[in-house]
Amino acid sequence: MIKNIRISDRRFPIGKGAGSDAIHRDPIYSYAVTQLIDDSGLTGTGFAFTLGEGNDLVCKAAQFYAEQLKGKDIEELMAAFGTLFNQLSNEQQFRWLGPHKGVVHLALASVTNACYDLWAKKRGVPLWKLLIDLSPEQIVNTLDLSYLEDELTREQAIKLLKDNYAGKTNRMPVIATGYPGYDTSIGWFNYSDEKVRENCKKAVANGFTAMKLKVGSAEAERDIRRAHIVREVAGDDIRVMLDANQQWTLPQAISICKRLQSMNPYWIEEPTHPDDVLAHKTLAEAIAPTKLALGEHVPNRIIFKNYLQTGSAGFIQVDAVRVGGVSEFITISLLCRKYNIPVVPHVGDMGQLHQHLVLFNHIVLGHEALFLEHIPHLQQYFTHPVVIENGFYITPMEAGSSCDLKQMD
Amino acid sequence: MIKNIRISDRRFPIGKGAGSDAIHRDPIYSYAVTQLIDDSGLTGTGFAFTLGEGNDLVCKAAQFYAEQLKGKDIEELMAAFGTLFNQLSNEQQFRWLGPHKGVVHLALASVTNACYDLWAKKRGVPLWKLLIDLSPEQIVNTLDLSYLEDELTREQAIKLLKDNYAGKTNRMPVIATGYPGYDTSIGWFNYSDEKVRENCKKAVANGFTAMKLKVGSAEAERDIRRAHIVREVAGDDIRVMLDANQQWTLPQAISICKRLQSMNPYWIEEPTHPDDVLAHKTLAEAIAPTKLALGEHVPNRIIFKNYLQTGSAGFIQVDAVRVGGVSEFITISLLCRKYNIPVVPHVGDMGQLHQHLVLFNHIVLGHEALFLEHIPHLQQYFTHPVVIENGFYITPMEAGSSCDLKQMD
Repeated sequence: MIKNIRISDRRFPIGKGAGSDAIHRDPIYSYAVTQLIDDSGLTGTGFAFTLGEGNDLVCKAAQFYAEQLKGKDIEELMAAFGTLFNQLSNEQQFRWLGPHKGVVHLALASVTNACYDLWAKKRGVPLWKLLIDLSPEQIVNTLDLSYLEDELTREQAIKLLKDNYAGKTNRMPVIATGYPGYDTSIGWFNYSDEKVRENCKKAVANGFTAMKLKVGSAEAERDIRRAHIVREVAGDDIRVMLDANQQWTLPQAISICKRLQSMNPYWIEEPTHPDDVLAHKTLAEAIAPTKLALGEHVPNRIIFKNYLQTGSAGFIQVDAVRVGGVSEFITISLLCRKYNIPVVPHVGDMGQLHQHLVLFNHIVLGHEALFLEHIPHLQQYFTHPVVIENGFYITPMEAGSSCDLKQMD
Repeated sequence: MIKNIRISDRRFPIGKGAGSDAIHRDPIYSYAVTQLIDDSGLTGTGFAFTLGEGNDLVCKAAQFYAEQLKGKDIEELMAAFGTLFNQLSNEQQFRWLGPHKGVVHLALASVTNACYDLWAKKRGVPLWKLLIDLSPEQIVNTLDLSYLEDELTREQAIKLLKDNYAGKTNRMPVIATGYPGYDTSIGWFNYSDEKVRENCKKAVANGFTAMKLKVGSAEAERDIRRAHIVREVAGDDIRVMLDANQQWTLPQAISICKRLQSMNPYWIEEPTHPDDVLAHKTLAEAIAPTKLALGEHVPNRIIFKNYLQTGSAGFIQVDAVRVGGVSEFITISLLCRKYNIPVVPHVGDMGQLHQHLVLFNHIVLGHEALFLEHIPHLQQYFTHPVVIENGFYITPMEAGSSCDLKQMD
């Protein structure tokens, strides 16, 4: 039974240009942390990620949701978590502040993730293990499929899961080999050309076969020059992704993306405003076969549905600490599976949680084991930080979702 | 010069089923109020509207934005308000919490509206008067047109304004006649059939020629029965709008809207989730020529752009206390004018502010003077409450935007 709630506002200035992109020049990586303390002594930890200012608002909203879980049994909650998620996300007074987006939805992510963590700890298994052992019906019971009736009913979701269950065993070896990572820290926006060149060499030496550069400058020339530097150092066999962090207008994006095609980007990420579904559709059509990746700022399953329906996303970067937590992440992964679009979670230093979820996506849903973003700047703060060897995430074996933070106050 | 900031969390339980709809059974109408106090002794008041819980979060975010205005001169701010709006709404750490939606955007609305109120008070005129006297360039300088480059550049916005300036004089009589209202309080969701029938008679007797009923029941039969009651009492010449408050799935909406066509609704409002642009498109095509109205939960100009581009909205109900205040309201009204779609603001008891904005939309932009929603439950709390006579809003003549609340603590 959940006896106590603890909410913490944890902020970590990272400094020195790390984490910088075309919008965020000096971010403070922050977690709005929810802890659910069980009467058996276990603590479920979940969080949402923010960039500093306003992390306290997310904490306050999380407190509101978390209070409603006091006195509940975690196994009972999770047996019908979809219903609970639907109730919390539609709580009548709070709903006005979204719905299903912004501060309140980030807060719901924090609380939801704490529930999944506690659930896995209660069963004494890593989250990925818990998830892959659930039946299709049990999985769907943890999901809120409302407003997806035109694309994914409960029956369709169960069928999609059953269809993919056959191949589960064949996909289990990923547990032993580890899940491939890609390196985002080679090319932060504020880094000099020289530093990008050096980091790029290091990443290749460390075994990475994919890496990402931040673009989205006021002058296209800088982006184009730097993209070619990465291609030159990395060679033709490495996948290079470009990330504009929403900085371009649609006309700009069309023009710059066409010029960037000459360095053969694996994808171009967040070219323009994350709410502009139709601009992405226009752009995707204009630059095909170059593909777009997006999703780190898309708040919920309904907007992802629209992105999938328009065929504008080549890769979906849903983030379990942006959408309403693990539950909505899985819902969106199911939608993507229906559309055969790969899921490559936005990591934002939460590889901690996503390590588990990409294993589930691959083993249970049959998504390709493509790669998972790696950003190391917060590793020191975790009790069980990710372990990367030769460019692969080593499968976490501790119980829970690997989200416990060290107490450093 | 702005010397002081005062932020207040004001909540007004309204009770007795008033304000209830298919989602909000027991709302607490609330304002997150920003006051900017000038060294000349003037106080600019603006607010965002919420339904109670979390109003404090909006207040806290508003404080963050408002602090940045200390020491600034209001005329200087407003001469380039578009630039300021762009800066505030993209403030690098806060932006993660949206962007441009949810708690932080509601807070920006509160602060923006306080700026416009102070500006009008400084000039000693009602806000509508200030706005209709601005030149096209001055108006566009108050707007942030970013991410609209594919539809409305600065040059196009100025041209659209100039094209409509010719007819301004012909549209001035609305000041004397007043702006038509429509009555939303006849048919709140929790009201009995008998009460709806009575209210409907009263509204007709009070001169209203348009009124709205809340629908969105679990059983379609209730909605259909009540819609026909209103039509029967009101007769064929009254416009009757139906509001489902996002309660239907797309398949449900298609089926129920088709059945509701028999009572000839003037529009059907918020049939499904406000983020689901494509569902609205599908529905609009399925039930044409019946029109959809939407916008009270749409947070910003970019999503409105998508709704207009898909042709799914017959009426746009942008709300200046949901989007980023007066500035973004005007931007969206310009977009709507380009598409020839009427703007009928969601009032949510903020007719106070919208009274001014519909006059601007009609006189300057050439939008039809259709009607403005009227919900009286909070009138008693305002220093200058709206005055409705014979179904018409009497033009407010006090300086400012009519948003000052009485001190009742």
